[in-house]
Amino acid sequence: MSDSVYKIIDLVGSSPNSFEEAAKNAVETASKSLRDLRVAEIMKLDMKVENGKVAAFRARVKLSFKYSD
Amino acid sequence: MSDSVYKIIDLVGSSPNSFEEAAKNAVETASKSLRDLRVAEIMKLDMKVENGKVAAFRARVKLSFKYSD
Amino acid sequence: MSDSVYKIIDLVGSSPNSFEEAAKNAVETASKSLRDLRVAEIMKLDMKVENGKVAAFRARVKLSFKYSD
Amino acid sequence: MSDSVYKIIDLVGSSPNSFEEAAKNAVETASKSLRDLRVAEIMKLDMKVENGKVAAFRARVKLSFKYSD
Amino acid sequence: MSDSVYKIIDLVGSSPNSFEEAAKNAVETASKSLRDLRVAEIMKLDMKVENGKVAAFRARVKLSFKYSD
Amino acid sequence: MSDSVYKIIDLVGSSPNSFEEAAKNAVETASKSLRDLRVAEIMKLDMKVENGKVAAFRARVKLSFKYSD
Amino acid sequence: MSDSVYKIIDLVGSSPNSFEEAAKNAVETASKSLRDLRVAEIMKLDMKVENGKVAAFRARVKLSFKYSD
Amino acid sequence: MSDSVYKIIDLVGSSPNSFEEAAKNAVETASKSLRDLRVAEIMKLDMKVENGKVAAFRARVKLSFKYSD
Amino acid sequence: MSDSVYKIIDLVGSSPNSFEEAAKNAVETASKSLRDLRVAEIMKLDMKVENGKVAAFRARVKLSFKYSD
Amino acid sequence: MSDSVYKIIDLVGSSPNSFEEAAKNAVETASKSLRDLRVAEIMKLDMKVENGKVAAFRARVKLSFKYSD
Amino acid sequence: MSDSVYKIIDLVGSSPNSFEEAAKNAVETASKSLRDLRVAEIMKLDMKVENGKVAAFRARVKLSFKYSD
Amino acid sequence: MSDSVYKIIDLVGSSPNSFEEAAKNAVETASKSLRDLRVAEIMKLDMKVENGKVAAFRARVKLSFKYSD
Repeated sequence: MSDSVYKIIDLVGSSPNSFEEAAKNAVETASKSLRDLRVAEIMKLDMKVENGKVAAFRARVKLSFKYSD
Repeated sequence: MSDSVYKIIDLVGSSPNSFEEAAKNAVETASKSLRDLRVAEIMKLDMKVENGKVAAFRARVKLSFKYSD
Repeated sequence: MSDSVYKIIDLVGSSPNSFEEAAKNAVETASKSLRDLRVAEIMKLDMKVENGKVAAFRARVKLSFKYSD
Repeated sequence: MSDSVYKIIDLVGSSPNSFEEAAKNAVETASKSLRDLRVAEIMKLDMKVENGKVAAFRARVKLSFKYSD
Repeated sequence: MSDSVYKIIDLVGSSPNSFEEAAKNAVETASKSLRDLRVAEIMKLDMKVENGKVAAFRARVKLSFKYSD
Repeated sequence: MSDSVYKIIDLVGSSPNSFEEAAKNAVETASKSLRDLRVAEIMKLDMKVENGKVAAFRARVKLSFKYSD
Repeated sequence: MSDSVYKIIDLVGSSPNSFEEAAKNAVETASKSLRDLRVAEIMKLDMKVENGKVAAFRARVKLSFKYSD
Repeated sequence: MSDSVYKIIDLVGSSPNSFEEAAKNAVETASKSLRDLRVAEIMKLDMKVENGKVAAFRARVKLSFKYSD
Repeated sequence: MSDSVYKIIDLVGSSPNSFEEAAKNAVETASKSLRDLRVAEIMKLDMKVENGKVAAFRARVKLSFKYSD
Repeated sequence: MSDSVYKIIDLVGSSPNSFEEAAKNAVETASKSLRDLRVAEIMKLDMKVENGKVAAFRARVKLSFKYSD
Repeated sequence: MSDSVYKIIDLVGSSPNSFEEAAKNAVETASKSLRDLRVAEIMKLDMKVENGKVAAFRARVKLSFKYSD
Repeated sequence: MSDSVYKIIDLVGSSPNSFEEAAKNAVETASKSLRDLRVAEIMKLDMKVENGKVAAFRARVKLSFKYSD
């Protein structure tokens, strides 16, 4: 039957360089085990600060993928 | 001990006919593997549009169920 | 004086069949005792689940009506 | 160039029968003049009440379409 | 590589005594199987009412932990 | 007919000792006159401050109960 | 006992002249029957438009008052 | 057919004197070209500051009007 | 270097007459000591009620100004 | 007369490389036909995923421009 | 003149025992240097987790106090 | 005593090149005078537009640091 059910999860990726790279890390880690990812929505952006410097950019990403029933 | 812990997940169901059927698809697919579902909250409703027509109604549903620790 | 004051209340209606019927139940129950209802806004939709099936559709509805001072 | 720009608009559709029909009216009216509609998100649902009865179901729908620059 | 990916889940804990105990139950149940929990954010607090008395305090808690890819 | 309509109200309880006691005061005061309370959701927590000390904990609580039509 | 319980209601006042007057109408109508009003929070402002002109300013106001148990 | 579709737009009006006048400017400018405006909702209020003084009051207003298909 | 950093603060102004005057009081008090204010956004409006009458209009205002590093 | 009215629209720009480039595409496409753009606010960021890779960064941007009455 | 201006700040207090104690710590630390604190609103509650246990309860608290102009 | 109190402030950084650089400017300016910064959350992203081009990327950043009582 064609009416698939999708599951939504939130992942947090991280990168020393940019929010784009942080988000890509989350998406590409998820795509190793999840099927049929199509859109990844940014839910939150923050930065880890160490010794007064930005040490990492982080992106919380909402992903939907086929739910295996 | 009686103080059970519940887990919350978000699923997206879909139907060519109605939001109710879309939500039911999500709930009934989940209930095959999850224990003790009691309330399913609608988080978002949208529609897939193809060739200027509504091709599917979709419902994002938040479900809680017993967390197996 | 023409500057009427309205009161706003939230009701939850329920139906085994649809969100529309759930919302109608709330509106029509309210209209038995309240004057001058004109708009009913949907605030929340959820479903009661029993034995893995959707047992009821529920609609929380915000209603405004003439406040009797 | 492939990086298209999309515009987002909000329409309100209405129906005496259901929220689905109200949303469809908005989408199908829009599709007469707008190109490349793909998703229509429900932003708000309400009802028009007349003489204590629900006279119309209304759906506010957010649509994106190709922006003609 | 150091750019770990974290997953975020929502659990609901419960206690007859306090919101703190309810939240602790959720965190400590999760920590049996999840690695590297560091912060648990309260998303919602509610109470189960029976016979006009508060029968349980409940806390919905958002937790992040290392995602095993 | 089984499709009951519920009404939702917001009460604010207060206590010199804790948010739990504040919320309980609201619920138990309401339960003297309202039927069939089942869930009480915390909407807001604040504190009254006097002379630089917390003089009272306050909890705004949303309650639903059977609507007498 | 000093731990009073307050109830919160939402009223909509209206005025042809200003939002301040609209809000005052709501507050002063409420104060005829409710005890111990202290703060009235503006929840929403809108305007009724007739024949392309603003016919009324309206203010939705949240009020708390002593709950008679 | 009676099930009209409405479009919603956001305008920002401005005035040196008051938020009411700012909102009126937005509504009355819109009503020169748009049909069947009935409600205008305030979405945001801010002020332009020049040399430490409030130079203008501004109101962002959401308007709905008949969509010409 | 031209990439200035701004700080954002929230002030609450008050007036017996209007929200505009309340907001102006906040802005003009701030401008005595802060440099380069340009926009002041209204975050919340409420009223102090005494003896059933509106005793003061209050405006919470968000202001940004040059941060002295 | 100096009290101009502005209109607000939402556009979605896209780029294979970054959110900045996606947002710039939206702004610069809009500026071909709209007068007096000054601020563009990011409303939402998401990514298109194809074959487990981020295929495009997208930015929803809110723009205000002079409304031609 | 009586129309005082208040400033609003956010503090985060912490306690090994309870949210109430965490919030009290924030309020009482603030009251050492700030005048005329009256209400402290809870903005966020979270917990620090160490070795799978809740190590601290934390409360973000919004406080208003007299602004010294 | 170990239960430190933190203060939260909002800064806006700016950069001609990227949101990351804008956020870094805010964090690094703050770290000159504030102790123990650890996380910086992005609250809002916008762009300054001049002559139809993006002239600056801006990031509003929420920072917490040890409150000196």
